[in-house]
Amino acid sequence: MMDKPFAWPVRVYYEDTDAQAVVYYANYFRFMERARTEWLRALGVDQVAMMQDERRIFVVTETKAQFISPARLNDELIVTAQLGQRTRATFAIEQNIYRNGVDGELLVRGGVTAAFLDADTMKPKRVPANLFEEKT
Amino acid sequence: MMDKPFAWPVRVYYEDTDAQAVVYYANYFRFMERARTEWLRALGVDQVAMMQDERRIFVVTETKAQFISPARLNDELIVTAQLGQRTRATFAIEQNIYRNGVDGELLVRGGVTAAFLDADTMKPKRVPANLFEEKT
Amino acid sequence: MMDKPFAWPVRVYYEDTDAQAVVYYANYFRFMERARTEWLRALGVDQVAMMQDERRIFVVTETKAQFISPARLNDELIVTAQLGQRTRATFAIEQNIYRNGVDGELLVRGGVTAAFLDADTMKPKRVPANLFEEKT
Amino acid sequence: MMDKPFAWPVRVYYEDTDAQAVVYYANYFRFMERARTEWLRALGVDQVAMMQDERRIFVVTETKAQFISPARLNDELIVTAQLGQRTRATFAIEQNIYRNGVDGELLVRGGVTAAFLDADTMKPKRVPANLFEEKT
Repeated sequence: MMDKPFAWPVRVYYEDTDAQAVVYYANYFRFMERARTEWLRALGVDQVAMMQDERRIFVVTETKAQFISPARLNDELIVTAQLGQRTRATFAIEQNIYRNGVDGELLVRGGVTAAFLDADTMKPKRVPANLFEEKT
Repeated sequence: MMDKPFAWPVRVYYEDTDAQAVVYYANYFRFMERARTEWLRALGVDQVAMMQDERRIFVVTETKAQFISPARLNDELIVTAQLGQRTRATFAIEQNIYRNGVDGELLVRGGVTAAFLDADTMKPKRVPANLFEEKT
Repeated sequence: MMDKPFAWPVRVYYEDTDAQAVVYYANYFRFMERARTEWLRALGVDQVAMMQDERRIFVVTETKAQFISPARLNDELIVTAQLGQRTRATFAIEQNIYRNGVDGELLVRGGVTAAFLDADTMKPKRVPANLFEEKT
Repeated sequence: MMDKPFAWPVRVYYEDTDAQAVVYYANYFRFMERARTEWLRALGVDQVAMMQDERRIFVVTETKAQFISPARLNDELIVTAQLGQRTRATFAIEQNIYRNGVDGELLVRGGVTAAFLDADTMKPKRVPANLFEEKT
């Protein structure tokens, strides 16, 4: 059982902000990708090897976010990733963004639905059964 | 009545793509912002003047997108913007992305919920009643 | 002879700006790429076909920019591209960014040095002799 | 004396790459900004406080980069920052990007010239004399 979501720290730089002096809305999705990638890496999933060896690529088929409060320059954020609903071909990843730790202020509530595609045919491939189990 | 959605062309450059040779998922939200901004401009709404003169800023409170088929380098896309559901404080904008014209292939089905905030207090302000009417 | 540089219009959106309310410095390089790409397209160079058919890819080996005055939200910029010095393996492209037309205010003076590489070996390939001649 | 340059790690994600499967050239400038910002932070310089309290903003007036070898998805990079030449109003920061540590492969040799401006008048302000001394 995965009780606590995976958490990844992200610092806000000028590149992330816009002329409203807050993080530009599309950039929260970049932060989510970083946390997802690090979560998969922590689970032992190497996306580059997966593409080269198994011709399996990870794609996002849906995403959504609710922007509750803006992040600002220099903020230290925590971005989480946690497995949501699974089907044979897709799985949801729930991702929230907090300021001042996961017990701090919730800024963004979001998530993606993802799938694996065959890198050659671009057809869906089954989600590996043990993908979200810690490798030992 | 607005029968046909506003449509804005976007060309895909290297900056928009990623190592999967498709448009990076967060960048579709940049494309949507361009179309929304041009739609508001076409309706006579000047966001900079609105911020400076009325201290009213446009913010996105929610967004979502369904990625149906990927856009690639050099593609000529059409991004639409169309008024969806309205409340006193928020309004939805439906935004789709097509390749080869609005009668072409639908790549992304998305949209945002937006609101106006007081630039000083960051409290919600009423959506101007005539915002989506052509100024004459 | 190419007397006047190629000129490409770019509108500044929120995505391009940062918390100083000006265009983020790295984003001027994105604008330059758009102008270069459109200039090459106008000259009949199709980078995608070149990569697929000739296995020749365009790479930037050096770039520089002098930031004279900042661009701001909603500005309409003109980005130029003009052939500079050529060698067998490289060529310079001079690129300036103006507000209010090429006779307006010069904001950025920049440029790149570019080369063509073999897409398989990543070794330099000769610059096609007729690359910068209008195809007829 | 500052013998060794400040070094900051950067991981390459999909957001940083382009359809040539390498880091998009403008994004190296984002990496450089992260390293500069963290270097200034390590020196005790808080850019947000500086803007709010002293009305002094940090701006880049020139930048350049030589792209020697490309970075790729998942690469772990080191970005350095080191004080270069100083004048009363400007200072240079030399910034290199390496793969596999500062003794590894040099990918990008770059740098910026920076200045401080008065946030209200946008006129140059003197570089604080003790800016690059460790605060104690």
